[in-house]
Amino acid sequence: MIRQRIRQPALADKVMSATQAAAFFKNGMTIGMSGFTRAGDAKAMPRALAERARTEELRFTVITGASLGNGSDGLMAEAGLLARRLPFQVDPTLRNRINAGEVMFIDQHLSETAEQLRSGTPSRIDIAVIEAVAISEDGIIPTMSVGNSASFVQQAQQIIIELNLSVPLALEGLHDIYLPAARPERQPIPLTRADQRIGGAAIPFDPARIAAIVITETPDSPSNILPPDDETRAIAGHVIKFLECEVEAGRLSHDLAPLQAGIGTIANAVLHGLTDSPFRNLTMYSEVLQDSAIELLDSGQLAFASASSITLSSAMNQRFLANLDKYRDKLVLRPQEISNHPELVRRLGIIGLNTALEFDIYGNVNSTHVGGTHMMNGIGGSGDFARNGQLSIFVSKSVAKDGRISSVVPMVSHVDHSEHDVDVLVTEWGLADLRGLAPRERAPLVIEHCTHPDYRPQLRDYFERASRAGGHTPHLLGEALSWHAHYAQRKTMRMD
Amino acid sequence: MIRQRIRQPALADKVMSATQAAAFFKNGMTIGMSGFTRAGDAKAMPRALAERARTEELRFTVITGASLGNGSDGLMAEAGLLARRLPFQVDPTLRNRINAGEVMFIDQHLSETAEQLRSGTPSRIDIAVIEAVAISEDGIIPTMSVGNSASFVQQAQQIIIELNLSVPLALEGLHDIYLPAARPERQPIPLTRADQRIGGAAIPFDPARIAAIVITETPDSPSNILPPDDETRAIAGHVIKFLECEVEAGRLSHDLAPLQAGIGTIANAVLHGLTDSPFRNLTMYSEVLQDSAIELLDSGQLAFASASSITLSSAMNQRFLANLDKYRDKLVLRPQEISNHPELVRRLGIIGLNTALEFDIYGNVNSTHVGGTHMMNGIGGSGDFARNGQLSIFVSKSVAKDGRISSVVPMVSHVDHSEHDVDVLVTEWGLADLRGLAPRERAPLVIEHCTHPDYRPQLRDYFERASRAGGHTPHLLGEALSWHAHYAQRKTMRMD
Repeated sequence: MIRQRIRQPALADKVMSATQAAAFFKNGMTIGMSGFTRAGDAKAMPRALAERARTEELRFTVITGASLGNGSDGLMAEAGLLARRLPFQVDPTLRNRINAGEVMFIDQHLSETAEQLRSGTPSRIDIAVIEAVAISEDGIIPTMSVGNSASFVQQAQQIIIELNLSVPLALEGLHDIYLPAARPERQPIPLTRADQRIGGAAIPFDPARIAAIVITETPDSPSNILPPDDETRAIAGHVIKFLECEVEAGRLSHDLAPLQAGIGTIANAVLHGLTDSPFRNLTMYSEVLQDSAIELLDSGQLAFASASSITLSSAMNQRFLANLDKYRDKLVLRPQEISNHPELVRRLGIIGLNTALEFDIYGNVNSTHVGGTHMMNGIGGSGDFARNGQLSIFVSKSVAKDGRISSVVPMVSHVDHSEHDVDVLVTEWGLADLRGLAPRERAPLVIEHCTHPDYRPQLRDYFERASRAGGHTPHLLGEALSWHAHYAQRKTMRMD
Repeated sequence: MIRQRIRQPALADKVMSATQAAAFFKNGMTIGMSGFTRAGDAKAMPRALAERARTEELRFTVITGASLGNGSDGLMAEAGLLARRLPFQVDPTLRNRINAGEVMFIDQHLSETAEQLRSGTPSRIDIAVIEAVAISEDGIIPTMSVGNSASFVQQAQQIIIELNLSVPLALEGLHDIYLPAARPERQPIPLTRADQRIGGAAIPFDPARIAAIVITETPDSPSNILPPDDETRAIAGHVIKFLECEVEAGRLSHDLAPLQAGIGTIANAVLHGLTDSPFRNLTMYSEVLQDSAIELLDSGQLAFASASSITLSSAMNQRFLANLDKYRDKLVLRPQEISNHPELVRRLGIIGLNTALEFDIYGNVNSTHVGGTHMMNGIGGSGDFARNGQLSIFVSKSVAKDGRISSVVPMVSHVDHSEHDVDVLVTEWGLADLRGLAPRERAPLVIEHCTHPDYRPQLRDYFERASRAGGHTPHLLGEALSWHAHYAQRKTMRMD
């Protein structure tokens, strides 16, 4: 059994317990861990390290693909292991530490982490911890995500493999490992279609750097997205109608363009909505695939899906793993540098669909900061796709907290995506197509199409008064952020 | 003489006056005009059209490469010709009309205009007006800029050529015209070095679409950059020292990486400062070349310069045109889609150097909006380079208006470049290297290194109080924009 999973016999004597492997870590190290949106994360080492941290000073810079499952970020944060954390997270405990200023969090575009590591900024990887299906003759076979694992393996002084026996060996062949060369020798990335393979099935590695192989059987945490509701269905309806109009106008072909969808309930619901759409022969070129992608593959509407990670509900995960042969030719998992690469996002003409925390009347989007100050998750790949893609769509429910927060505000309290990068805004009330419009033309559309009716009079009033004060982008600076201040004081953005 | 300039004899009978050519224009048309930063702009047609607008309703969408010279934007704005204008401008008259809400200005990333035209958003080009050195057997030979001209010619129903006899024929061969194919047939752009040529010397065109050839002799407007002063010299010193440290740390090679420098006095001064640096064999891959680029070519430190436009002072322009043979192998002018393309900016690992109007303690940059509302020029290509390049440096003098405005503020009043895209901030006081730092770590660096001493106590006080209130990015929303409001009321940001 293990010989099928460790096909380089010389490595067999590297098998040890997580506690033994934890001894390789030294205080102050930079650790690269596999894992991207609850998929393919190292399961044993975070626990073993948190255990060690009970009795000694142990603080790391921890770099991942994106978020982790199994509560690992929370465990590590509680144990005080995390001095610095990048480039993304979703854990409630870690989030609190970040917002208290106890963990230094670097919120990065997900295509950029590998590039920065390559140029030695801010520091090099000491130990890579990588979950694998197997170690083949050619390299490490990742599990349900690739993330930054190939870059970590390439750079780390020492490599620890978590061999996860709960993941079927049949995943082998699903991955496509290609990394750009260091500059100035870099060549064009030879990918011109979402369904193309440009690399090998395994992550090449130097056997001399393997410090430990730890056997695990813990599955990925199931994704925790909510089922579609009336509002997400309405949002999906607006997006699909818009795309149909684009096809009718000749700006998109019948199979659209490769789709990207951010993580989370709303993006998943929009994709789910495509099962009722007239579109066929679709492709995805995304950073993550959720349940909806598998549904679309099953319905036959999605011809191919490329991503860096697959994160599914328990039921869908079982269905997926039990029917891997059916999906084998329709899926590929790539390093996140490739799934999110500006070169490919622009070349393929990605249609990006991402979730906003809030947006403003001129089209600026806040994806990360609650009340302008408190980190929710991170920008993730939304900036890679919104800036460089063909169409950048942001979706949000129009209100939060039972209507006490409007997602549409006079001025966002933090800007992740500027007006230059936002083409279309959508809530359950409707859609605003901002392309080719000046700020003064955008505001009425955003107010009348996207804003909850309860907040339209307030926004109209703000925009009218600001317009009289003048400017290309009219604002009353003394009031622009007052909705947020009002909520902080009175727990509602309603001014009446 | 003219036969040297019009080498397709069938076109000779298209020569006419600008007034005659103006008759082709109809109210409501979308016009694509050559011109990028005062270089290579159409000189005769804007005047002729403004003249026609005196006696009849004539309003256009005018798309250019970037800004125009010869006061053309002002003339057209005054004549009421400009209903919509994109993607960049610098004209005082036009600026006033934009800020009064009379001209709808669409402020775009300069790499994106051609892409949007290709997909028919917002509208197709009716007439292209292109300044040319000559019409060769192969196509239109542009003058001192390429800008979006190749895209305009490809798409326009009718083409009007302004043949400028004041520009030497010797410019022929300087241009490299390559446009990406429409999707989904698009291939990788085969450029891997700044000095590479990947296209032809002329813009291919359909002779049947040539409506008119207008002969002109008006030269480009000279650039109006100011000479280096103590502050810009200090900024240059900080940047050069930083780059030296990067070389020493092994993160950059001795010939650095291809440099991009934004338009304007400060960026020009930083490049000028490189003449006193130890760097050799440098390359530029920029959107525009100013006097400093020619100086660096002359000093031998710059081995090659690629751009979309050359805009020079009168004296430098004469020197340049008189010595073209010397520069011929060291220069290339490309479409701005290629000079600013995300694919190439990431592949080449551009070091981007751009000017900020203001930036904040967390590294967000405002490049465009005075007081958060009034458009100055536009974002230009800064977003193409800052997002996708290897290093993103923003420079600014620490104060404006005799010290009454601080360029470093608690929160910028408009975000063009988010904290995710800004690596290094520089003023005459010093440099803050923000790479790999969390917001709470960035603020003290920005305050102590970049802020004018007069404003440091105010900023320290803000940051300390905000930090106590908590959050990943501490702010006091009620105060965050109060410096701007204070200036609006009392003409100073000093609170004492």
